[in-house]
Amino acid sequence: MLHINSTFSSGNIDVVDINESSNQVQLKIHQDNNSDFKQWFHFKVNNALNRTLTFQVSDAKDAAYPDGWENYNVCCSLDGEEWFRIPTDYKDGVLTFEFSFEESSAYFAYFAPYSYERHLSLVHQAACHPLVEHSVIGQSLDGREINLLRLGNPSAKHKVWLIARQHPGETMAEWFMEGVIGRLLDYTDATANQLLNEACLYLVPNMNPDGTERGHLRTNANGVNLNREWNCSTPEQSPEVYCVRDMMLKEGVTMFIDVHGDEGLPYVFLAGSEGIPSYNDELSKQEEHFKQVFKMANPDFQDEFGYPKDSPGEADLSVASSWVAEQFKCFGMTLEMPFKDNANAPDVEYGWSPERSIQLGETILTPILSHVTTF
Amino acid sequence: MLHINSTFSSGNIDVVDINESSNQVQLKIHQDNNSDFKQWFHFKVNNALNRTLTFQVSDAKDAAYPDGWENYNVCCSLDGEEWFRIPTDYKDGVLTFEFSFEESSAYFAYFAPYSYERHLSLVHQAACHPLVEHSVIGQSLDGREINLLRLGNPSAKHKVWLIARQHPGETMAEWFMEGVIGRLLDYTDATANQLLNEACLYLVPNMNPDGTERGHLRTNANGVNLNREWNCSTPEQSPEVYCVRDMMLKEGVTMFIDVHGDEGLPYVFLAGSEGIPSYNDELSKQEEHFKQVFKMANPDFQDEFGYPKDSPGEADLSVASSWVAEQFKCFGMTLEMPFKDNANAPDVEYGWSPERSIQLGETILTPILSHVTTF
Amino acid sequence: MLHINSTFSSGNIDVVDINESSNQVQLKIHQDNNSDFKQWFHFKVNNALNRTLTFQVSDAKDAAYPDGWENYNVCCSLDGEEWFRIPTDYKDGVLTFEFSFEESSAYFAYFAPYSYERHLSLVHQAACHPLVEHSVIGQSLDGREINLLRLGNPSAKHKVWLIARQHPGETMAEWFMEGVIGRLLDYTDATANQLLNEACLYLVPNMNPDGTERGHLRTNANGVNLNREWNCSTPEQSPEVYCVRDMMLKEGVTMFIDVHGDEGLPYVFLAGSEGIPSYNDELSKQEEHFKQVFKMANPDFQDEFGYPKDSPGEADLSVASSWVAEQFKCFGMTLEMPFKDNANAPDVEYGWSPERSIQLGETILTPILSHVTTF
Amino acid sequence: MLHINSTFSSGNIDVVDINESSNQVQLKIHQDNNSDFKQWFHFKVNNALNRTLTFQVSDAKDAAYPDGWENYNVCCSLDGEEWFRIPTDYKDGVLTFEFSFEESSAYFAYFAPYSYERHLSLVHQAACHPLVEHSVIGQSLDGREINLLRLGNPSAKHKVWLIARQHPGETMAEWFMEGVIGRLLDYTDATANQLLNEACLYLVPNMNPDGTERGHLRTNANGVNLNREWNCSTPEQSPEVYCVRDMMLKEGVTMFIDVHGDEGLPYVFLAGSEGIPSYNDELSKQEEHFKQVFKMANPDFQDEFGYPKDSPGEADLSVASSWVAEQFKCFGMTLEMPFKDNANAPDVEYGWSPERSIQLGETILTPILSHVTTF
Repeated sequence: MLHINSTFSSGNIDVVDINESSNQVQLKIHQDNNSDFKQWFHFKVNNALNRTLTFQVSDAKDAAYPDGWENYNVCCSLDGEEWFRIPTDYKDGVLTFEFSFEESSAYFAYFAPYSYERHLSLVHQAACHPLVEHSVIGQSLDGREINLLRLGNPSAKHKVWLIARQHPGETMAEWFMEGVIGRLLDYTDATANQLLNEACLYLVPNMNPDGTERGHLRTNANGVNLNREWNCSTPEQSPEVYCVRDMMLKEGVTMFIDVHGDEGLPYVFLAGSEGIPSYNDELSKQEEHFKQVFKMANPDFQDEFGYPKDSPGEADLSVASSWVAEQFKCFGMTLEMPFKDNANAPDVEYGWSPERSIQLGETILTPILSHVTTF
Repeated sequence: MLHINSTFSSGNIDVVDINESSNQVQLKIHQDNNSDFKQWFHFKVNNALNRTLTFQVSDAKDAAYPDGWENYNVCCSLDGEEWFRIPTDYKDGVLTFEFSFEESSAYFAYFAPYSYERHLSLVHQAACHPLVEHSVIGQSLDGREINLLRLGNPSAKHKVWLIARQHPGETMAEWFMEGVIGRLLDYTDATANQLLNEACLYLVPNMNPDGTERGHLRTNANGVNLNREWNCSTPEQSPEVYCVRDMMLKEGVTMFIDVHGDEGLPYVFLAGSEGIPSYNDELSKQEEHFKQVFKMANPDFQDEFGYPKDSPGEADLSVASSWVAEQFKCFGMTLEMPFKDNANAPDVEYGWSPERSIQLGETILTPILSHVTTF
Repeated sequence: MLHINSTFSSGNIDVVDINESSNQVQLKIHQDNNSDFKQWFHFKVNNALNRTLTFQVSDAKDAAYPDGWENYNVCCSLDGEEWFRIPTDYKDGVLTFEFSFEESSAYFAYFAPYSYERHLSLVHQAACHPLVEHSVIGQSLDGREINLLRLGNPSAKHKVWLIARQHPGETMAEWFMEGVIGRLLDYTDATANQLLNEACLYLVPNMNPDGTERGHLRTNANGVNLNREWNCSTPEQSPEVYCVRDMMLKEGVTMFIDVHGDEGLPYVFLAGSEGIPSYNDELSKQEEHFKQVFKMANPDFQDEFGYPKDSPGEADLSVASSWVAEQFKCFGMTLEMPFKDNANAPDVEYGWSPERSIQLGETILTPILSHVTTF
Repeated sequence: MLHINSTFSSGNIDVVDINESSNQVQLKIHQDNNSDFKQWFHFKVNNALNRTLTFQVSDAKDAAYPDGWENYNVCCSLDGEEWFRIPTDYKDGVLTFEFSFEESSAYFAYFAPYSYERHLSLVHQAACHPLVEHSVIGQSLDGREINLLRLGNPSAKHKVWLIARQHPGETMAEWFMEGVIGRLLDYTDATANQLLNEACLYLVPNMNPDGTERGHLRTNANGVNLNREWNCSTPEQSPEVYCVRDMMLKEGVTMFIDVHGDEGLPYVFLAGSEGIPSYNDELSKQEEHFKQVFKMANPDFQDEFGYPKDSPGEADLSVASSWVAEQFKCFGMTLEMPFKDNANAPDVEYGWSPERSIQLGETILTPILSHVTTF
């Protein structure tokens, strides 16, 4: 008898019906607690050896960004480590995919998960490195850690902040941070070494541990979208943002990158702060320089496709990159990776993947170094 | 500012007070849900770099087995992987230990934890092995998997069952199962290969996944001690036992070992089924044979120290090994490993450890093979 | 165009003819320098992608032990690490085998090679362990190291010596030593720990480094069979034996095992010292005890098949185990592993293998411990 | 008693005298066979536990490039894997260094060695990759393999050749190739993937296997400096060059990089082909573009320090990069890495190292990609 469950870290599914004879499984996605957002799913199917099952997510049309299902392929894993894509249809508001089991079990997810347990391990490995100063700067509503890693030259003029995963379902953002951290701590890497001399780096690899553990798409334990809290955060409603903002005000910021995943666009791109009141030619030049070097360092980055630009003065200052750019009069950008794939260099088997996210994180050090040595 | 938390898999602690100036931390252990049992603890301390802290567990005297604190040393880990011991006092009902932090964080636990995530990974690795038939035979009250691995010769006369971790805080029992499984699946191991030809093995590496995840000492999600359920289990109260018993009745049992940890005795030992109604000379001979070979295979096993023997007919048939031995008229024993250490071969640095538990699991294949080829 | 070569460590082949159009390759084996012995071969074929080649070793009948080719299958490796068997015929004195290349290159050998470079690495890893005292006690004719590892309790009454690979083509002997050393240095292994307390162990993992490097079957750089030198060794002719014998006389011996491979018999077995002048009931009892425990510890060991027993007083005292047993009036045995397979538990894919040799080495600690605690 | 030997792959030393009481060791370096060149050394010291030894290389002044000893620090390894630097003096033509042994053995070398065995393993790992076409295109005088790896788009206009280690003592050149190959075969690397689409790559990771194995500094088995053979190579004198040149003429070349180590300059730099007859503005622009992108991709590369430029038409066409650039009218450069360190980013502990060589190899893909997409 089939056994389907999501009772594990970042699990999310509701089983509506299992028809053993027709091999049809009807599923729904669970909303974030106290919120209407849903699109993240992550579940495990057991006792399915030698069976071919058809899964239907009947409420896909009610997802936060239904257009995200167009040309999207579900992520599947046999071992919880390697995640490949399986052909997926989206029609009449229903997401349908089929899988032939050659082992008894398989995992399915919106994107390769990144658990809170792995987050703790990532932070620990960095924390015990002699170059890194680690602190828990606050805790989430459920009591989980908000971890900050500081490394580099504390007296450098450049204070570079990277934060990730305000939206917990955008797991590629934390895979990306694994790349950033891994390369920074590679003591033989000439780029990393020079950057650590020329800048002080502040990294928050996971802004939303409760959403991570609970299997949320976009919000914290109480249904709050953290990336709409930056100009109005309170310790009660969004302690995750509040404590980071607090440290920024204490330590200063000269460069800020907020790392995300985008449900719709099949590209890696950056969104700038052109809509903030204090935007000027200098910031524009810095953004352009960054993008040119990033393209050279990693062809997965492009700047042809992206969000429409904000009109001058129209930026939403509740958004992290806008608030930081305006508050500190500095470079502030949002980096988006696809849930789907990079349409310029598609990978049928894996789509956009943890490995490519990690490499994007590794290679972003080149434009960051170029920025701090140029400006 | 110190940050202490247990909001993670198998975490368990209540912080009563942190005195930042005197570096004193007052703690209590959380009871199992709906139960008075407590003794398992597992928590993390952050932001403690270069500080020496004193921890006091003020309710240690209310633990399930307070004598277990005598000569006990707390397990500590910097990375969540290597667990060493730190000097610990038990006086006036309070457990006290001190730690000097050379990194920002450390974990403390009653014994090296074994998380549900690791359980899933253990089962998966075994499940994808061609020799293994994996099934989820039921689910816990919270909806987690009860996993059964079947391997070996399905038509063999010998049906050997090993189950572990009815008591979730006795994590050494699952480390032990890692050893059993790892050796059975080593295709170059002559003992394993012969055993797989001569017997069919049934392994339940974790009987109590809810207790595992919740940080319980001895009970399931609803406070039920599974090892008192074998003659009275219901799907409502102890589905974890019910589904395993069900499979036993279907498949048969000729040999049964139930793996545990003991809070008090600093030895590895076996408890037999001498108290069941149908005990006889044949079972006595089998138990004695098993113990003699086990001693030769692994000097960590001994049979000088152990529980007092049951009087004839006085066995508690709600206990797994007694119920199985009586039901199937077969070899049924309970294996106990220490929380403390093996006093015959003490290890000041690590005490009894995951590594020794794994090796005990590996080496138990030798007496099992000797049993099935002899009887 | 095919490229066949053996210009690497332990390489041995002469190419007689390559017929590119018929895909036939004629080979001969090179004799040990200054000797008629030959049977070891080890070579590499390149530029063979998508071709099926037939190899004929035309002088197989002139090998040291031509009966060894009966039921023998050649070892093949694509990566130099995993060695599998390929079907092989021996007829009319010619050894013939065929291989279909799915990669450009493959290695072929009589048995999985164990290079001098790997020997140095094995010794180094042991040498830096705090329990081990390492010394180079002499050098071979070509100037290579004779390495001795001493570990355990220097004041113990039991002095246990294991030496391996007097015959360099019997590489399984050094794989075996890897198992012995690995388990002895596993600080969590209860058997190893007790043995290190109760005995002092002396290990010589490679008696013949020149033969190893030169691709010899049985002799040192000058064609001398070291296992016929023990009662007549000189520094000029067999410095490899001379220096070990010297250390034995200085340090003492209470137990001696000399590890070999046998071309003919498809079994693991021990040869005793029943033919030495001072053989007696006590030695006979010790040998019998050892064999019984070894069988229990590892079913790959058996004592049904083996060499015919020496008549009393007829032992050849130039042979290591006889000389040592007589000289020190102690347990002295020769352990033989097959080049072919264990016919009691055959493995079509790998035959007898490095992995099984390693495990035999690991498990021999159980009878050694039983010996030193019993006698 | 001390034991010093170099009887292993790429070993090179002559022991002149060991003074056991004064702990002084007198050494000389062995010349390349049939040549006066010497500077490479590689030897092992045994039986030195707890001793502090002083080593003097008395003929250092006769080395190929004696100025290379200025500010040079000897490479030392305890395990043959990690190579650190030890303080070294060069005075009155003698190279002196001291080492305190905390283990019984240590290796000393001019630079971290790269053995022929490792070369075979590197080639094999690449060869079994589906993207790679491997062939042995010739053999050295001693009969070792000249390996060519071809990968990428066979019909691309760009034919990019990288060759390394014409001078076998310049081992950093093969470490570098490990980086090149490793990144090219990382299927998640966007730069590598684009490059494999846009170019066909030809890699010869080791031009001189005999010199590698024999412990030579600069020449092949017969004392020939391969990098003075390109316009006059014969199969008898320099088959290693002859077969590569042959393949170039068959396959074509549009870009060529020859990888070396430099005894004197403490920098990474490129030497161009400005002295060849057909040099022109286009080649000059290409060289300049390459250097600018390389600097951005890896700060270890610089173009301030380097060799004096050739006068127009004065290039020595027996040198690989000049011959190729002239023959194919294409980009042809020699890449030099230091034996000492990068003086712009010195590393006291390791100096220039295998790890940095590997990373330089990885990062050179960025300027190569920029070249092939630009020109």
